[in-house]
Parts: sequence; structure tokens; C-alpha cells
Amino acid sequence: MRILILGGDGYLGWPQALYLSQQGHEIAIFDNLARRYFDLEQGFHSLVPIETLQKRVDVWREVSGRTIDVHIGDAMDYDTLSSVFQTVQPEAVIHFAEQRSAPYSMIDRKHAVFTQTNNVVGTLNVLYAIKDFAPDCHLIKLGTMGEYGTPNIDIEEGFIEIQHKGRSDVLPYPKQPSSMYHLSKVHDSHNIMFCCKVWGIRATDLNQGVVYGVETDETQLDPRLATRFDYDQIYGTALNRFCVQSAAGYPLTVYGKGGQTRGYINVRDTIRCIELVALSAPKAGEYRVFNQITEQFSLNELAEIVVRQSDLLGLRTEVHYLPNPRVEQEQHYYNATHTGLIELGLEPHLLSDTVLESLVKLAMEYREDIDSRLIAPTVNWRNTTNKVAE
Amino acid sequence: MRILILGGDGYLGWPQALYLSQQGHEIAIFDNLARRYFDLEQGFHSLVPIETLQKRVDVWREVSGRTIDVHIGDAMDYDTLSSVFQTVQPEAVIHFAEQRSAPYSMIDRKHAVFTQTNNVVGTLNVLYAIKDFAPDCHLIKLGTMGEYGTPNIDIEEGFIEIQHKGRSDVLPYPKQPSSMYHLSKVHDSHNIMFCCKVWGIRATDLNQGVVYGVETDETQLDPRLATRFDYDQIYGTALNRFCVQSAAGYPLTVYGKGGQTRGYINVRDTIRCIELVALSAPKAGEYRVFNQITEQFSLNELAEIVVRQSDLLGLRTEVHYLPNPRVEQEQHYYNATHTGLIELGLEPHLLSDTVLESLVKLAMEYREDIDSRLIAPTVNWRNTTNKVAE
Repeated sequence: MRILILGGDGYLGWPQALYLSQQGHEIAIFDNLARRYFDLEQGFHSLVPIETLQKRVDVWREVSGRTIDVHIGDAMDYDTLSSVFQTVQPEAVIHFAEQRSAPYSMIDRKHAVFTQTNNVVGTLNVLYAIKDFAPDCHLIKLGTMGEYGTPNIDIEEGFIEIQHKGRSDVLPYPKQPSSMYHLSKVHDSHNIMFCCKVWGIRATDLNQGVVYGVETDETQLDPRLATRFDYDQIYGTALNRFCVQSAAGYPLTVYGKGGQTRGYINVRDTIRCIELVALSAPKAGEYRVFNQITEQFSLNELAEIVVRQSDLLGLRTEVHYLPNPRVEQEQHYYNATHTGLIELGLEPHLLSDTVLESLVKLAMEYREDIDSRLIAPTVNWRNTTNKVAE
Repeated sequence: MRILILGGDGYLGWPQALYLSQQGHEIAIFDNLARRYFDLEQGFHSLVPIETLQKRVDVWREVSGRTIDVHIGDAMDYDTLSSVFQTVQPEAVIHFAEQRSAPYSMIDRKHAVFTQTNNVVGTLNVLYAIKDFAPDCHLIKLGTMGEYGTPNIDIEEGFIEIQHKGRSDVLPYPKQPSSMYHLSKVHDSHNIMFCCKVWGIRATDLNQGVVYGVETDETQLDPRLATRFDYDQIYGTALNRFCVQSAAGYPLTVYGKGGQTRGYINVRDTIRCIELVALSAPKAGEYRVFNQITEQFSLNELAEIVVRQSDLLGLRTEVHYLPNPRVEQEQHYYNATHTGLIELGLEPHLLSDTVLESLVKLAMEYREDIDSRLIAPTVNWRNTTNKVAE
């Protein structure tokens, strides 16, 4: 299958490209390198060193004998984006090319406006490019479980049957996102659903949970194929932060009461989910939604298992509770359905002791490179002007 | 009360400004004159001649002895917008300043991107300006009934209680908008709800139906105070189009089967609703939603009453069915709750024979100025490139 990966240089885009290439698909990457530019701008870095995109692709050819095409460009630039659609003629497009950090989107007005404009207009451009240049192409779009927020009823996969005053209908699941970034994904979902209806586009919207892990069968073939490991306050997730804090001998920082519960998924499952989805395209005009998670944890549960695992590795780790820089429920009901991808054939890799051990060991391996100034949260949801670093 | 009206030069913004000024409020208008610019660009016109904004305000002072402040600027330009917030220090801001046409948003990619960027970023700017410069100011935002689409259950006012698997929650009503424009309002609603939660902003989102009528007590004081009457395919509504077609001796054009049912409201009720809302601000952090309609009609019902009324005025009027340029359900259930504004004190002016007669007579009065080329729909939802006029 000819597959175009937008954002194919990122944390997930890159191992996705390797995996699908290894399965024999023709892969083209489109990326504007925005994630690398942010690091340059802020003096941030991936804890695991990563090669340039060009080098990565060369190493992959050397290691596997397979080719990945690279197109440098921005989804906001329709001329460039649409010419890539015309060149590649993709049968599936996997869309990771968005600003993906909630704290980034809450830095100030400019970052909020950038996030929403970049994500919404970029996705509109992708939809128009499909309609105009690759109308049968299957759009596989990365959404987020954060679109749903934390309702007091079970979260379903995109749609919910509602009984009301003696009538019933299956309607889009109500959304209660909790950052300018999560809002941008809600906007995308509405836009994509509409374009499927009016133009007959086929799309799968994957409401992905928090992804953890950095190793896949392909990245393990050569250290130069590694994907990034972010632990900073802007792009790092709580689990990565906990592993790094533990390895560096800092206390784990839980925001608020720690009852915040979310869906999680291993990077190996993420790339497999997307393959399963690509191999079972929806019919023309269908807008399909899956919740891309395999299990759920509260922050307190995550902290607890990191402490336990660290203990086994000889690390003495404490948990500190910080005032929550976010505005969110800290004790709440959470139960999200996630059967669709299992039905397509996913066999989950859960967050085992082995996986956790490898993450903490990874952080220990790069302990000297850990910069504590990157970790402390300086972006407060309640303020309209925040500084990322002093 | 100090009230800032964004988009105060438009079809509704202008009579709203007059009405609130007449009630003794201090009124400032902020407008970028985009609606007038579109006419210049396309060679379109309001059937009722309108004065420039500066002239209107002068006439109002002459007629009423009251002053309306004018600020020319664009909500996309945060420096200008926020300086107006600092100057005016509004206690309420009424936000009409959006691109408001569904067909406009479906012309092509550029118009879709413009509509969503302009509306979403403009509203984000308003939210940041409130938070930073007028934190107690009540945001009164014009949404649209089109945000809901046509679900098979009753439409509630913004939220719906959902019973699901033995639990229940009150959640945002699911949205199924049917144009790039209607989508932009859905995006706004989500953004506003979020900003109320994180910043304690007080907001009322008015999901307005199709507004008809041009006369209010204030516009009737002097013909130079008239508001616009649009009958073109981009900004005209079906009812205006029918009245104009009847007056000009053209057949009424119903798109599709004509079962499309929507909520309607008289312009006199619209301006009264907004006054009622301004006088009863929600508490800090509250996001309140009302459905601003007073009755509902299908296209076929509207066509029928226009034919009947025209008959009484000696006009012989036929109905033609055109292939629908929009993608929408043409036969569907529709029942929208609209009790919130009645409870605040609204006494509806329904679509009576008198109102209809005055609209048809208005069209007859300006019969010589009717340009049939403005009426035929050339924007088809199924195409990504449409021309407004040949």
C-alpha cells in the first residue's frame, strides 16, 4: 500500500514509518520538523539522542534495504501539501502533523492561536487535498482521548446512542476537552465528520491515549533508528517524567490530588493499531472512530508502580504533590470503551514490570543528560501569559 | 450599562446598537466593515439602501440625541481589539463579528479556511481580551441553531442529560453542523465553554435561528437608519429570497424536497432577547446556552405562506424545486426546545400575515433594484471549487 505519513519525523511518526516500511508498504514522510525546531528554540532535547531525518532514512536503507521517501513541508502550505498528494498518490494518509502539547497551547494567546490554526487549517488542507487529488485515500487521523474529558458516564468510541423523551438517535459523543490543544482536536473531529458526509471521504479518527515506550522491533535494529524520549514539561508525559525523576533521584511530581485517570497505550500497540486500521479502510463517506488505548491508570497508580519498580532497581523514590498547574477534575469516574481495535485484531502489550523496568533503565542510562530545569511546570492554565523557562 | 457590540454595523448588529442605545445604555461599535466589502467585491447589494456607518451614527444622534461610539477594526487584530476593550471597559460584549454565511464558507478551500480562521481566532481574541482587560465582562456570543444539525431527538438548550449504562451526566448537546461556517460556530462554542471553566469568564451562547424582518422601532424613526435586507444566494435567507422572487414575478426556488425544518425568529425578538440576556448576566465561570428561536417552519411551509400572502397582494407565484446545492436531510424530525428566553421575559412576535405582508411589500417597493443574477445558487456543497457569479 502507498502510505503518506504526515509528521513522520516525530515521536510516533518515525517508528510508524519504520514498521510499515518493514511490512513492505511504500512509505513517504511529510514533515516540517516543527518538533525539532521547538527544541532548538527552547534549548530542550530528547533524552535519547536522535539522528536527523535524512540520516535516519539512510540508516534504514542500510539496515533493511528499504527506502522511505522524504518531503519537507508544512501542512499549512496547501501548494506544497497538495503537490505531495499528487506525487505520492497515497492509498492511506496517516496524519500526525499537529502541534501535540497541551501545555504548549496554554503558554499564551499566541501559542493558543498557533495551535488551533495550525491543527485545524492543516487538517482542512489535508481534507481538501484528499478530495481534490486522492479521493479514495483513507485518512487515518490522530485524535486524542482528551477530546472526551472526564464525563460521569462511560466513554464510548466516537458515538453514543441517546434515549430522550421517547425517541432515540446515535449521535457524536459529547466533547469536554481541557486545553486549547485538546480543543483543536475536537474541532478537527467535527470538520472530518462533515467532509466524510459531503465529499464521501473515508476516515478513521483514532482517539489515542497517552503513549509510552520508545522501543519497537525496528528501532532496536540500530541505535541510530531511535525515536525521541521527551521528559520536559511541554512535551513529556507524566510516565516519562516519573521515570526520569526516579533515575535522577528527584521526587516524582504529581499534579493535584493524583486521581486524574487516563487511557494509556504502548508504542508497539499504537503502530500496530494504525496498521490494522489501514488494512481495513472504511467505506466511502464513512467516519469511523476508535479509542486507541489498552488500559487506564490514575496518576497515583502510575507514581506507585514507578516507585515500586525503582525500588527493585535500588532507587529510593519519593512522591511530591504539586499544586495543579492545569484546571481539571482530580477525582472522577473514568471508564472508556476500547473494543474496536481489539476486534480488528490488536493483541495488547500492557504496562508490565518489564516495560517499566526498561523505561527506568533507559532514564538511568542517560542520567547525566537530565536537565531538571526542563521538568518543573511553569505553564499554568489559569494565566494567559506563561514563560516556558526562566 | 457599557456595551461593546462587535460587528455592530451588520444586519443585526446595527438595529441592536440602536435599540440598546435607546434604552439608555452606553454603546460602542467595533466593526471591520467586512460585510460591506464583500458587496463591493462581488457587485452585490442590500435591497434596502443603507447609509455608511459614520452617517448612520450621525443620523441617530440627530434623531435621538444619543451617541454611539465607533471603532473600525478587525477582531483578528489583537492589538486593536484589546485596546478597544481597555478604552471602552465594557460590562457586556455582544459578539456578532463573524463571517456568517454557510454558502460563503463552501465556495472553496480559501473561503472555508478564512471562515474558520476568522471566526475561531476572532473569538479566541475576544476571550483573551476579556480575561486580560475586562474580566467581569459578560460575553454574549451569537451561535447558530445550525450547530445542532437535525438529530432524531429533541434539541435541548446547549446541554442534555444522558442516561447510559446505569449512570447519568449532563453533557454538551452533540453537534452535527452542516457547513464550514456552522462548524466554525461549533468550534467557538467549545472554546468559550473551556475559557469559562479555566478563567471564570461569564458567557451566554445564543444559538440563533434564521432571523427575518428589517424593521424595529428605532430603524423606523428615519429611513437613513435602515438595516440591510439581503436576498442574494450568499447572505440572503430562504424567506427573504422567497419574498423577493414573489415581488419580482420569479418562481420561488425550494432546494431539494423542502422538508428542511429550521427555527426562526423576528429581528425585534432577537434584539430583545439580547437585552434580556445582558440584563441577567450569568455568574463568573458560567457558560449558559439559549436557543434563540420562537417557532419553526419547513421550507415548504414558508413557500406556502409566501404564496398565500402574495396572492392577497395580487401576485401570482409558483414554486420550483431545484436540485439541492447543499448536503442535508430533506425530510427529518425537528423539535427544538426554546423556553430559556421566554423564562427571562421574551414575548414573541410570531411570523404573522402582517409581518409577511410588510416583507413582500418591501420587496415590491424595491422591485426595480432586484438583480436575478444574485439569486441563483452557484455554490454546491459537493464541489471544492465554486464560482459565486459568472
